[in-house]
Formats: sequence, C-alpha cells, structure tokens
Amino acid sequence: MVQTRQWLLANKPTDLPELDGPNATFKLTTTDLPGAKDDEVLVKALYLSNDPAQRGWISRDIKPERLYTQPVKEGTAMHARALCEIVESKSQRYKKGDWCLASTGWSEYAVVPANQVQPAPELPGGMSRTHYLGALGFTGLTAWFGLTEVAKITKDDIVVVSGAAGATGSMCVQIAKKIVGCKKVIGFAGSEGKCKYVEKIGADVCLNYKNSSFARDVEKATPGPDGFATVFFDNVGGEQLDLMLTRMARDGRIAACGAISAYNTAPERTTGLKNWFEVITMRLHISGFIVLDYISQFPKAREVFTQALKEGKLQIDEGEHIVNGGFDDIPKIWMQLFSGRNIGKLVTALQ
Amino acid sequence: MVQTRQWLLANKPTDLPELDGPNATFKLTTTDLPGAKDDEVLVKALYLSNDPAQRGWISRDIKPERLYTQPVKEGTAMHARALCEIVESKSQRYKKGDWCLASTGWSEYAVVPANQVQPAPELPGGMSRTHYLGALGFTGLTAWFGLTEVAKITKDDIVVVSGAAGATGSMCVQIAKKIVGCKKVIGFAGSEGKCKYVEKIGADVCLNYKNSSFARDVEKATPGPDGFATVFFDNVGGEQLDLMLTRMARDGRIAACGAISAYNTAPERTTGLKNWFEVITMRLHISGFIVLDYISQFPKAREVFTQALKEGKLQIDEGEHIVNGGFDDIPKIWMQLFSGRNIGKLVTALQ
Repeated sequence: MVQTRQWLLANKPTDLPELDGPNATFKLTTTDLPGAKDDEVLVKALYLSNDPAQRGWISRDIKPERLYTQPVKEGTAMHARALCEIVESKSQRYKKGDWCLASTGWSEYAVVPANQVQPAPELPGGMSRTHYLGALGFTGLTAWFGLTEVAKITKDDIVVVSGAAGATGSMCVQIAKKIVGCKKVIGFAGSEGKCKYVEKIGADVCLNYKNSSFARDVEKATPGPDGFATVFFDNVGGEQLDLMLTRMARDGRIAACGAISAYNTAPERTTGLKNWFEVITMRLHISGFIVLDYISQFPKAREVFTQALKEGKLQIDEGEHIVNGGFDDIPKIWMQLFSGRNIGKLVTALQ
Repeated sequence: MVQTRQWLLANKPTDLPELDGPNATFKLTTTDLPGAKDDEVLVKALYLSNDPAQRGWISRDIKPERLYTQPVKEGTAMHARALCEIVESKSQRYKKGDWCLASTGWSEYAVVPANQVQPAPELPGGMSRTHYLGALGFTGLTAWFGLTEVAKITKDDIVVVSGAAGATGSMCVQIAKKIVGCKKVIGFAGSEGKCKYVEKIGADVCLNYKNSSFARDVEKATPGPDGFATVFFDNVGGEQLDLMLTRMARDGRIAACGAISAYNTAPERTTGLKNWFEVITMRLHISGFIVLDYISQFPKAREVFTQALKEGKLQIDEGEHIVNGGFDDIPKIWMQLFSGRNIGKLVTALQ
C-alpha cells in the first residue's frame, strides 16, 4: 500500500477555474493506493504535461457524449499525462527505475496497467526526456497530423498558425516552414517576445494579436487574392478565427485544433463567429480533429521528427517551459496556460 | 433600339433592404438598349428567379474579392436570372420565339451573348418551364451537389436540412429521402404549414424552429449517440447552425449552402456561432460550396432528376410559389424571400 497525494476535481468550472475559495475547482487530498497487481506498474510522476485540452475535460458545459475522452468526474483525480519513473513493476515489460509515460492524473503515485504505459527511453544528444510530453509527444504529433493529414499542406501553401508560440503552434511553424517548406508561414502570438521567438523558429512573420493594428496587420500579411491564406491551423478560435475567415483563399482549409480563447467562458457568453458567410462564398473546408485518431500513424511521424532533429530542422529546446513546483503548486502552474505567459510546452517538474 | 425599364441598385444595404425612402435599395429607371449584334440575342424576361443569394451580391459588407461572382455595382441593374422569350436573334442557335434562360437582371429586355444563354425547351408531361428556375435549375442542382458531392450522403446517413420548405431545402429533403434513400431525414422550417409540407414530400419529421421547444425537439429527433445527425445541409446559418453543432455525430459533415438568417444583418450585429468547440471534439467537417463549381456535372445531375420525376420520386409542382406582378413590383416580391412566407421556389411572373 502506498500513500499518495492527489488533486481532485471539486467543482466543474464554467468560467476561469478558481484556485481558492468555496468554489475552488480542485481540492488536495491524500489517499491510499493498492500495490501493483499482475501486469500493472506503480509509477511516480516526475513531470506533468499541462494542456489546454484539460480544461475541456472538466467543463460544466460539455456533455460526456460530446467529448473525445472521458470527462473528469467531480470527486476524482484530475486527469493528466506524466513522465514517470517506475517504482514497482509486476510486468515483464518494465523494471524498477525505467522511465515511462502514463496518464497518472494529478497524483504523486499511480497504479497503471502496463499496456497503458509507453516507454520513455533516453533521447539522443542529451535531449531532455520531457520532450516526450511536448514536441515529441502528443503536442508535436497534433501539429504534424493537423498539418499533414487534416490540412494536407504542401510547399505551395500559405499557412497561418494561431497560438504560434505555444506548444502545438511552435511545432506547426517549424513543420510547415522547415520540414514541408511551405511558401509562407504566418504566426499569431500575444506578445512581442513571443513573436520574435516564432520568427526565430521559422515564421516569415508573426503578428501580435494584442496590437490594435492586428486586423490591418493580418490584411497586410495576407494580401488578396494571391496572398490569401490557403491553410489556417487554429489553436485559438474566437476573434482570431473569425478574422481569418475573411482572409482565407478560395477552397482554403482550416484545421480546427483548439479554441483556447473560449475555454474559460461559457459558450453563451462568448462573442461568437460572425463571418460565417465567408465559409460559403470562399468554399472553405473546416475540419476539427483530435490527435488520438491518428495513433496508428504515430511511429511514422516520430521517424520524421527524428530525422528533422538530426538535420537541424526542428529546434525544440526553447519550445519548452519547465516550471519547478511542489505538489501543492500543480493547479497554479497549470493555470499559467491561460495567462499567456509561457512560450512552448508548459511542463511542471515535481520537486 | 429598344426601350426597357430596369431596377438599378441605388444603395447597398447593410441590413434589410429598403423599398422606399431616401435610402431605398433599388431605383426604377428607363433606358435604351442597342439592338442585338452578331451572336447576340435580345430577350424579354417573362419569369424572374428570386434567390436569397442575390442579397449577398448587393451587400455593403462583402468585399468583391470575397464573393464568387461580380457584386452588383451601385447605379447598375440588379442581377437576376430569368426565364425569357427570344425577341430578336443574331445567333444561329436561337430563333425568335424560343424560350431560354439568361442572366438578364431586373430588366424587361436584355441583350445577351448567345453563348451565355441556355435553351429552355418544353418539359415533358406539361410541366411548367418555370421549374428551370427552381427544381430543375440552379436551386435543385444546389441541393444535389451539396448532398452528393459536398456531404457525400449515403443510405446510412441521418440528414438534417434547414430551410427545408424553401426552394433548395425542399429538393434536399426529396433527394435525401427518395432518391438516395437516407436512413432518416429531418427538416427545419418556420411554420406548421411548412412543416406539414416538408413531411409530405418525404421528411421523417420536420421541426418548427419558431416553437419555444425547438432545441428540445431537435434533441429528441437526434438522440445521441446513435441518433446524432451525420449530415447537416444548412441553408440558414445562425442559431440553427449553432444548435446543430451540438447535435452532429462524430465526423459529421456540414454542407454550408446558405445563411439566410444573417443576410439582412451586418456581421458585427449577428449573434455569432458559440458552439465552435464541438467542431473540434466531434471532428466535424464543414465545407462551403457554390453550385457554379459543378457546372461540368450539371448534365449528369439533370438525368438523375429526369429519371426521378418519371419514377415519381420528385414532387416539384408544389415546390414553386409563383407571384404575378408588374415590373414595378419586382423588389417587393423579391423581399418576400426574407419574410418567410413562401414555400418552395419564389418566382415572379411578369405581367
């Protein structure tokens, strides 16, 4: 028997999750875990992945049958993916001390079936294993499949990426510009510093959506008709998406990956998309997608990434923002996702 | 030289077009036409097609490069398609007295290049030639290509059609249910009378969006997860589309054909789509389309319609609402499109 601390979902939020007070979204608790049974492993979470998608899993506004995964139930541990060390193994696949990836939730320790754990072997060139949570994990794969399978980008495309300094967006920019070699890559981000970073990793230009000139800047960067965007990889939704509907080329493709601008607002209070008519007149093609639908193709994508790393086409070290924190700090660090402070993947290093 | 009356676009509207007053949208004028030159025909418009799409062509809010056709310029004749009689022909293809289809605009007479005119031969079974403007013309073809090429419907689909009593919607219902044989066809319309009509022509059920119970009715008609809609053919946009985002099955397809709910409101004053997140979680696929992109396939589609008419699978006579009017009444009759009164195709018979 192992004792573990856990953060439970206490109250499903409709707006910004609350850290304190009577409606606090999460609640810290301590619970006893049974030991690992046959074909199970007991793991200790070392690094936690922080993902905007987690906000969807706890939303009061989303019905379970409308989500691609089990939503978190109130009174149970918050879901999260972690880079872990195996503490006890009842599986032939793993031994004590191995590193692995697992959906532990916000828990110090977790008992997981061995077949639901992925190995996290050492990476070449001394790269940090935390990249398994970001660039080399679901985040990078989301960028890859959204661009190559959903939007089907080619060299001829003019690609716009929102949330371009974020975990997924920064991979999108590099994949589009450096791996596929798209004609033009335009990023949107929320500060001058982020924009500089996005341009450094390959964007032809990155526009700060907080500038009052943003709409004009976008117009200038996508001059019609030949310069209209042919692809939009959208992590943000809301006003940036609405604006982009007016800047897409005929038959333009939109890969709808995320909508972080609206995650902390109940749907009825969001501004809403107003330029829908452009979808019709410009024959736009919009597809929502979830990276989990492409699991069978993960190995092939990872090969591409490995090759691109070797060739220096991917710069992932700066695309990671690791925050050290105690177990108590988990919700607070996770909430940084919504304050727009971090560049790249936000990872919590548990002390 | 022929004298003709014409309705000009006087003021581009941002909201509902105005029939009178200083900002009247249209203005009646009289002008002289040159006679037909070589390879041209002089036609007299007998029946005018009234189409919601025309509202887009005169909008102040739409930039020319964002439209699929030349917008109407202020001071020039309002664009419209008409069923005409040839009055004078300088082309070997047509002779005086022939019937044809042409883009005459709101004009009694027009001179048109013969290669931009389509013949309108007599229809079998005494069917009215006015169907060339509706069920057997662009309207019916819009329904056909939206369902078969954009949404790619099959027997297994649960299809929802908004504006189901309208010109395009009523063809959608029949194509989906009677020609393709879809599992379930659900219509949305704006009165009990319209709903009865939609059910009569083949819908399993038609729901009145003006009822306060509409959202619950839609939920009941598309019970999740097995009863979620797999296809939505949308003529309306706005709130009905926003609601349908929450009722689509995983990988559901939306054919975005029209957005009549928003045509008479400037984009910034529309309610906007708020349920965008469902596009992502349910991996929805949305495609805008314009029937003109399928011109090369028109003959094949017409063959299908001819066969379906023979087999009694299409009932088009009731799908036409012909209003007799003088030339003065053209704008007023056209405006009926936006009052929700007519069932099926609204055609103006010029007296």
